[in-house]
Amino acid sequence: MNDQDYMALAINLASATEGQTSPNPQVGAVLVKDGKIIGMGAHLKAGEHHAEVHAISMAGEKAEGATLYVTLEPCSHFGKTPPCSNLVIESGIKKVFVASVDPNPLVGGAGVKKMLEAGIDVQVGLMEEEAKALNKVFFHYISTGLPYVTLKSATSLDGKIATVSGESRWITGEKARKDVHQFRHTHDAILVGVNTVIKDNPSLTTRLESGGKNPVKVVLDNTLRTPLDSRIVNDRAAQTIIVTGALAEPERVEQFTELGIEIIKLETEKIGIHDMLKKLGDRGITSVYVEGGAEVHGSFLKEKAFQQVITYIAPKLLGGKHAPVAYGGEGIARLEDTVPLEIKDVKQIGQDIRIIAEPV
Amino acid sequence: MNDQDYMALAINLASATEGQTSPNPQVGAVLVKDGKIIGMGAHLKAGEHHAEVHAISMAGEKAEGATLYVTLEPCSHFGKTPPCSNLVIESGIKKVFVASVDPNPLVGGAGVKKMLEAGIDVQVGLMEEEAKALNKVFFHYISTGLPYVTLKSATSLDGKIATVSGESRWITGEKARKDVHQFRHTHDAILVGVNTVIKDNPSLTTRLESGGKNPVKVVLDNTLRTPLDSRIVNDRAAQTIIVTGALAEPERVEQFTELGIEIIKLETEKIGIHDMLKKLGDRGITSVYVEGGAEVHGSFLKEKAFQQVITYIAPKLLGGKHAPVAYGGEGIARLEDTVPLEIKDVKQIGQDIRIIAEPV
Repeated sequence: MNDQDYMALAINLASATEGQTSPNPQVGAVLVKDGKIIGMGAHLKAGEHHAEVHAISMAGEKAEGATLYVTLEPCSHFGKTPPCSNLVIESGIKKVFVASVDPNPLVGGAGVKKMLEAGIDVQVGLMEEEAKALNKVFFHYISTGLPYVTLKSATSLDGKIATVSGESRWITGEKARKDVHQFRHTHDAILVGVNTVIKDNPSLTTRLESGGKNPVKVVLDNTLRTPLDSRIVNDRAAQTIIVTGALAEPERVEQFTELGIEIIKLETEKIGIHDMLKKLGDRGITSVYVEGGAEVHGSFLKEKAFQQVITYIAPKLLGGKHAPVAYGGEGIARLEDTVPLEIKDVKQIGQDIRIIAEPV
Repeated sequence: MNDQDYMALAINLASATEGQTSPNPQVGAVLVKDGKIIGMGAHLKAGEHHAEVHAISMAGEKAEGATLYVTLEPCSHFGKTPPCSNLVIESGIKKVFVASVDPNPLVGGAGVKKMLEAGIDVQVGLMEEEAKALNKVFFHYISTGLPYVTLKSATSLDGKIATVSGESRWITGEKARKDVHQFRHTHDAILVGVNTVIKDNPSLTTRLESGGKNPVKVVLDNTLRTPLDSRIVNDRAAQTIIVTGALAEPERVEQFTELGIEIIKLETEKIGIHDMLKKLGDRGITSVYVEGGAEVHGSFLKEKAFQQVITYIAPKLLGGKHAPVAYGGEGIARLEDTVPLEIKDVKQIGQDIRIIAEPV
């Protein structure tokens, strides 16, 4: 195995922790000496050991003189745990490969600097692209303070989310619907509009065979029309936040608050997507999975407020000039004003196709 | 090389003739003796030699005792050329692998029977599926008398064919639009609705770097609203047929006829898709490439009159509750009434994705 193989292993370890490290990044570390792996680790959960600590602890005294492969720059500051760069220095490691530096402008590069000053040979950039892709959510959140937004839709081959008579269960197959639960699991929050709550009364929980994490539920509801008896209000599997506008009645706000629902009241009559995302970011929510409906998707599109688009396409044709579509709202008038996207992944999932695209 | 390799080569030869053999099928033949290829051929054009004739002619007297690999059963009847099964027998070939028998219920199996009776060892079914896929158009036409219908559309990732303001040039990229011309080349006819003619004034010709065949242009026009000065009427690159309803005015019909346009007047006020296809089939049109617009696609959907769906999806989000969609019309009310499709191919073409689906 060569340097790239060891770093690939570190990335692999990190990628296995998808959905469980937020608000921290996914990080993996591999420690090698004399061509043998003497330590491995990944950061498993916020507040617990960083990846390097696990790897160095596994190696014990053998760490002296070893080479460390780590996907993210070892930290240099005292957070919930002591700085990893100190531990690397103390353990006698002689060489460190860092895939990417810390994206936090306040601390980025400091860990590398500290290790260099201690006489360690530090190489930055091995498999940087892969390492960054792993933590695209974390990198976005740290550098903008806003959650990473994924817009999800599921349509027929002709772009419809329901038939002309409103029938929508189910357009996509079981495997695609399971895939959606995997994405719920890996996002901090799931977001829908109040119309979806009224129409479908969804629970918005994660239902995976292996369990999975329930994301915070967020409802966009300008005037607090969310029914008090809806599942989203009464199911306590995860916290529910209702974002509302300036005209929401205080009594209504109180009713929800008494039921344990957090109400975020914005200063504008209509919810601004960017304002709302800022409030969620302030609460430590690093990623939002937007499941619609059409008006909500239209609002995110209008404000160009998204980092990823996931579209499931079922091999069905529904037709109908007025059958419901996934992205509604006013729409974009001129083609040149659309956000240019790039297809990142196309995959057949059961009978359906999943397309993942990102703004260029 | 083994039997399958030789048949694969025969299929390869046949597939190279896409778009040039109609109304005949694509057929390839390989002649082998003592482990060496002594003859190869494909049917190149209706009225010209069949594949076996080319292969046997290439081999000359060496054909005696050889093995023939042919993708379609050698014919047994006198058509534009003498029966190939006779030639196979006369040439002294001792073994024949036939991938698939002739789908024509009147003659299917007769060629095989004749060769068997002459003492030739005939094996049917080697790579049958691949051979049939090659001639799906021909097999459909021969067995139903109707052209094979491909519904084509090009949309944004959210299923729109234009922005809310009607801007549609161009949603897909250059490579996808070139791919469309390849399909025009391989279909006998291209079909649009009169609204598309009025709105876009398309020429509907094939514009490929290598030239390409112009398909017959078919316009669905219930009341003959096609403008006399439209490109489709005046461009003589290929024949134009306008299909119209019973209420079309005879004077208007005459105007078009004088311009060299063929008018097919149906007996109903509104054009029935199945009736229309029958008329095209009767004229020897074996395949129709339907380019829309939305009402036309909706009509084909309603009558479940299609064998292939090709959808280009561009990485753009346009939004808009009322932005135009690819499949309009009344639409299908219940999910259980949709034609079940199967994804046959997903391919990235330039920046876009092409999905090919067929009814199961």
